[in-house]
Amino acid sequence: MGLLDYFATTRPPQKVGNASIAKERLQILVARDRIARDKPSYLPQLEQEILAVIRKYVEVDMNTVSVKYELAESHEVLELNIILPDSAGPP
Amino acid sequence: MGLLDYFATTRPPQKVGNASIAKERLQILVARDRIARDKPSYLPQLEQEILAVIRKYVEVDMNTVSVKYELAESHEVLELNIILPDSAGPP
Repeated sequence: MGLLDYFATTRPPQKVGNASIAKERLQILVARDRIARDKPSYLPQLEQEILAVIRKYVEVDMNTVSVKYELAESHEVLELNIILPDSAGPP
Repeated sequence: MGLLDYFATTRPPQKVGNASIAKERLQILVARDRIARDKPSYLPQLEQEILAVIRKYVEVDMNTVSVKYELAESHEVLELNIILPDSAGPP
């Protein structure tokens, strides 16, 4: 699965104008080329730290956070998907 | 320009096996659906904080960091591209 597929598979069709269904979403991708494959991965450790940064700016219901991590031959990808509450604003 | 284009336009063809040319790259994308368009953007402010998190794990030459920010009608995207030094490891 290529990096390009990530947005496509995780972004449902937008339903603009239907406020009761449309939710504000935040998606964070961290992709690393694994040219030096003997080096340890640090991407999984970034998850909580990136979430902590995001939560400074917007209220995040941790139940709406989904995390994917893929380690492939040539790259690794950490993906965070967050559905923001309707009233999302500074915490 | 769609979100899907971001990886495509910023990722050069990989030159695996040519250590003198191939550089390890790290790419961070933060995408936000702008359903509530009256809310202020906080994505540009994330730049330095995300870089600070990354620099805990790997040495980053700030001269190799490129930042793009796009604010469109339906979404906004913050993109960080980092070329890691050959000896990249914990700082």
